[in-house]
Amino acid sequence: MTENAFADGAAYVKGAFVPIADATIPVTDWGFTRSDAVYDVVHVFHNGFFRLEDHMNRFARSMQARRLRPPEDRAAMETILHRCVALTGLSDSYVAMVALRGRPTVRGSRRPADCQNHFIAYALPWIDVIPLDVQERGAHLWIASVPRVPDASVDPTVKNYQWSDLTTGLFEAHDNGFDTAILCDAEGFVTEGPGFNIFVVKDGTVITPDRGSLHGITRASVLELCAELGIPAMVAPLPRAVLEEECDEVFAATTAGGVMPAARVGRRILGNDRPGPISRKLREEYWKRHEAGWHRTPVRPLA
Amino acid sequence: MTENAFADGAAYVKGAFVPIADATIPVTDWGFTRSDAVYDVVHVFHNGFFRLEDHMNRFARSMQARRLRPPEDRAAMETILHRCVALTGLSDSYVAMVALRGRPTVRGSRRPADCQNHFIAYALPWIDVIPLDVQERGAHLWIASVPRVPDASVDPTVKNYQWSDLTTGLFEAHDNGFDTAILCDAEGFVTEGPGFNIFVVKDGTVITPDRGSLHGITRASVLELCAELGIPAMVAPLPRAVLEEECDEVFAATTAGGVMPAARVGRRILGNDRPGPISRKLREEYWKRHEAGWHRTPVRPLA
Repeated sequence: MTENAFADGAAYVKGAFVPIADATIPVTDWGFTRSDAVYDVVHVFHNGFFRLEDHMNRFARSMQARRLRPPEDRAAMETILHRCVALTGLSDSYVAMVALRGRPTVRGSRRPADCQNHFIAYALPWIDVIPLDVQERGAHLWIASVPRVPDASVDPTVKNYQWSDLTTGLFEAHDNGFDTAILCDAEGFVTEGPGFNIFVVKDGTVITPDRGSLHGITRASVLELCAELGIPAMVAPLPRAVLEEECDEVFAATTAGGVMPAARVGRRILGNDRPGPISRKLREEYWKRHEAGWHRTPVRPLA
Repeated sequence: MTENAFADGAAYVKGAFVPIADATIPVTDWGFTRSDAVYDVVHVFHNGFFRLEDHMNRFARSMQARRLRPPEDRAAMETILHRCVALTGLSDSYVAMVALRGRPTVRGSRRPADCQNHFIAYALPWIDVIPLDVQERGAHLWIASVPRVPDASVDPTVKNYQWSDLTTGLFEAHDNGFDTAILCDAEGFVTEGPGFNIFVVKDGTVITPDRGSLHGITRASVLELCAELGIPAMVAPLPRAVLEEECDEVFAATTAGGVMPAARVGRRILGNDRPGPISRKLREEYWKRHEAGWHRTPVRPLA
């Protein structure tokens, strides 16, 4: 048996499929030098994409918001994602799609409209934003002092790579011995963390912020689960004080990890320093439904 | 005579010198996927770097602010910049240096501290952020509606690629038939444009914003020129109304273009729809001193 050159990941760049180690972009691509790019990440669980349609819809909206028009249409992009995953041979995978501004076709131009946009994609072995053992014991979430970039300056619903404030928060968290961070906005409302949405449970109600956050697909899945399980849930302004002092449980949600319960937030220990019952229930249900084929699109095998 | 493979640009990546067309970074580098990178740009005029020390100092501060520690020390970086320029054979050049977060050495880690930082550099043919003919007639500057990202969220003195708000401003400017844009902050103070500092002249005094802006090296050069020419100048809060209604002249300043006068700002036509006298004087003086070897470091020839 020959070794699979794509086992560490498969990518699509410049119209060709290559092992992830060979997937690169030019150092002069505006996707890099202006972080002028949008992306999305969908996961594959047991050979099936989870909510692929929703991810493609969001990616289309992100591209439109930034006027990014790569040559591949949606059907072609989906075919590329399927092929990336199939090439790796992985049954569980982290699958990224990115639209980049590219470089100007007019020499010396500084106009985004003069650039040749392009599309890249890649499938990697599954990644947990918060490691599994940390999810089990309950994550320790630091409330960062750096304010989240305001929605009016950079729309957080357009999935982007401009992580400076989130990275600053991560450094603060790690400096203080925490696993990861939550950022609030300048008005003192909770927003999101580096790569995940945040939820609190207060008096039996699940609340997730209405601002400063990506409209996460896992966030939507949590709200859907709540509705089906009869757990009251809402998208609402979430003052920092609720997170810091009043709530009973906290959990994070992301494609790369699912529902990830916390045990500590800031200097506060939640419950018995363990994931709370509603967080655990939602996490369990989220994966149980995956097993049952919830929102599943089977990965197309290689021809 | 053989053709120079570096004529379109020379780059240093992964410890080697390559033609710019071959200079790439991995699609999974956090310098890209989190825009976790800092950079600087110095120019070469007639075979001499301009203010190389100042650029290296600022780059060092930017790296420190983001805890980026590539293996090359400052002397090595300077040698690399010299060699990039010399390889191109260009007498006038745009020279970029970038420090990137890189990728984690611990598989699956989401911690910036686990990443192997790296340094890239490249020299390209000279670029004018505002084309020369536009500088001659006076640029038309749009006052963008998108607010600049606040300093508290992303420090604008740490030179970075997180241009989303600036790119939004550029789109607005181009949609309205203007050359480029100026952004104000949410409090209504003028900040900067996409790749340049902004100056106004009001009643004979030159003013540049004290916030929301890079501490530009060309900005410093303009202030130095003003001092030597006896033109009153200050770094101060600059309310939008001064730009929009009260000032007599406006000009932009950047490494990639120098002093670039404007003829229009928003819907307002300045003077006689031409660059103003102080802007012209500063532009002329800026280049005249270049000819005379101002702040010059000769490019080291290839061994």
